[in-house]
Amino acid sequence: MLYLIGLGLGDETDITVKGLTIVKKAARLYLEAYTSILLVDKAVLEQYYGREVILADREMVESSSDDILHDAQNVDVAFLVVGDPFGATTHTDLVLRARALKIPISSIPNASIMSAIGATGLQLYNFGQTVSMVFFTETWKPASFYDRIRENRNIGLHTLVLLDIKVKEQSLENMARGRKIYEPPRYMTVGQCASQMLEIEEVKTAEGEGGVYGEESLAIGVARIGGETEKFVSGTLKQLCLADQELGGPLHSLVLLGRRTHELESEYVREFAVSKEDWDRIWKRDYEGKQ
Amino acid sequence: MLYLIGLGLGDETDITVKGLTIVKKAARLYLEAYTSILLVDKAVLEQYYGREVILADREMVESSSDDILHDAQNVDVAFLVVGDPFGATTHTDLVLRARALKIPISSIPNASIMSAIGATGLQLYNFGQTVSMVFFTETWKPASFYDRIRENRNIGLHTLVLLDIKVKEQSLENMARGRKIYEPPRYMTVGQCASQMLEIEEVKTAEGEGGVYGEESLAIGVARIGGETEKFVSGTLKQLCLADQELGGPLHSLVLLGRRTHELESEYVREFAVSKEDWDRIWKRDYEGKQ
Repeated sequence: MLYLIGLGLGDETDITVKGLTIVKKAARLYLEAYTSILLVDKAVLEQYYGREVILADREMVESSSDDILHDAQNVDVAFLVVGDPFGATTHTDLVLRARALKIPISSIPNASIMSAIGATGLQLYNFGQTVSMVFFTETWKPASFYDRIRENRNIGLHTLVLLDIKVKEQSLENMARGRKIYEPPRYMTVGQCASQMLEIEEVKTAEGEGGVYGEESLAIGVARIGGETEKFVSGTLKQLCLADQELGGPLHSLVLLGRRTHELESEYVREFAVSKEDWDRIWKRDYEGKQ
Repeated sequence: MLYLIGLGLGDETDITVKGLTIVKKAARLYLEAYTSILLVDKAVLEQYYGREVILADREMVESSSDDILHDAQNVDVAFLVVGDPFGATTHTDLVLRARALKIPISSIPNASIMSAIGATGLQLYNFGQTVSMVFFTETWKPASFYDRIRENRNIGLHTLVLLDIKVKEQSLENMARGRKIYEPPRYMTVGQCASQMLEIEEVKTAEGEGGVYGEESLAIGVARIGGETEKFVSGTLKQLCLADQELGGPLHSLVLLGRRTHELESEYVREFAVSKEDWDRIWKRDYEGKQ
């Protein structure tokens, strides 16, 4: 059997009892370690499980899935995924390959940021599609997220923005020379995301296609959601450009508020505001009653 | 401390290790039992926890929250919620009241249908807002879901439809006479949902506002998601009207496919099709390449 087991979002104890039982008896354990990370290291997991865990990077999952699936018709293989097992495309791909090999499949769900984001106090019903924000470079500033946010904003919905993580990346030079030397991991912060959003807004405005959000749009910076040090900071996009210190270490995400925000949602979220006065003023002006 | 603890979606072992540790030591345990249900009874939970669990119905949570929060400044109170603690509005309300009483709050996330629905093979990124479907009566057929689905469909996104559950409901007669006699619980099925959707489509078409979906729109019926007997049936809305027997017992949900469906998503989902021929024919005609 191939088991896809969600680990949740925080530490080693966020696995479900059902998941842990399977982990203890499986023949092999793989940890998917490139679409998200737990707030603890692999060593902590190994200590907790009392077993070895094989790190599965993107290359292994995408190119050597047969190694992962080897003999899974006869023995139990557990593939551990941070969050919920179906949070990322790669894993449906792995399931399709397992199906083709007639391997039975079972998945053990767990918390995902897609639902844990409800801890901001915003109603999950009021979220539109989720978008991703990648690290911009001097020459590459993909703005497809902008049109997705526009679609959500037109309807009045919140947008969850998932932030880029770079693990096991090679520099261009090392890649060109075929050297398997990797850069230190990088995790995008709320401040970087908010700045990139405002940068694209400026570009779009200059092109006559702007106006989706602005410096005074209300948003929530989120750090380590679902973990014991979970932290929220709410404010304008401009204020959130400077909120990284208060938010602390990775992982970060951001929610852009939709105008279909209920008063209870605002009441819940203003508790985390950089400035309650600014929050109330902008809330009354741009959001309240704008169904 | 007030702990909001997600129980996940299936049985007693879907609680996280962290959640179970708190359950074992809390002074009082409440189980929220009206927005969703686990696939096992309260007695099974009590046996598993080795402790008494107090059933919290809507009336208790909405009118007697002070009882739940009593002395939580000094002792640990655990409020157990099926799925994730922030899946339903009521619980942010409870947190707001706890805040006002200066009670510290901690939440333990878990799987919610909002993310577990990824097990259909559809990408969570491609979902728009979630809608709810209530049981129609002869005189009450609320159709506000229709406009929400229209918004999602216009953008090309999938829609998750959550289906009504009725627990501890009084008949009109018993309510009028003040008799606390409750009807047996009712859980909407995929077949009932699909029929109600087609009924409203007909009404809207007659009013000149139809065309959001039709008998041949592709959808997925979902039963007991996240549980060990999880079951998917995919097909047209018309086919799903007759899929209840194959799906089996509650809880059910339904996903209406958006046209922004990736080929991999369709490949994954057609595995569950009532008729693969029909699925492929309609997929090619109405969805494939329609980004």
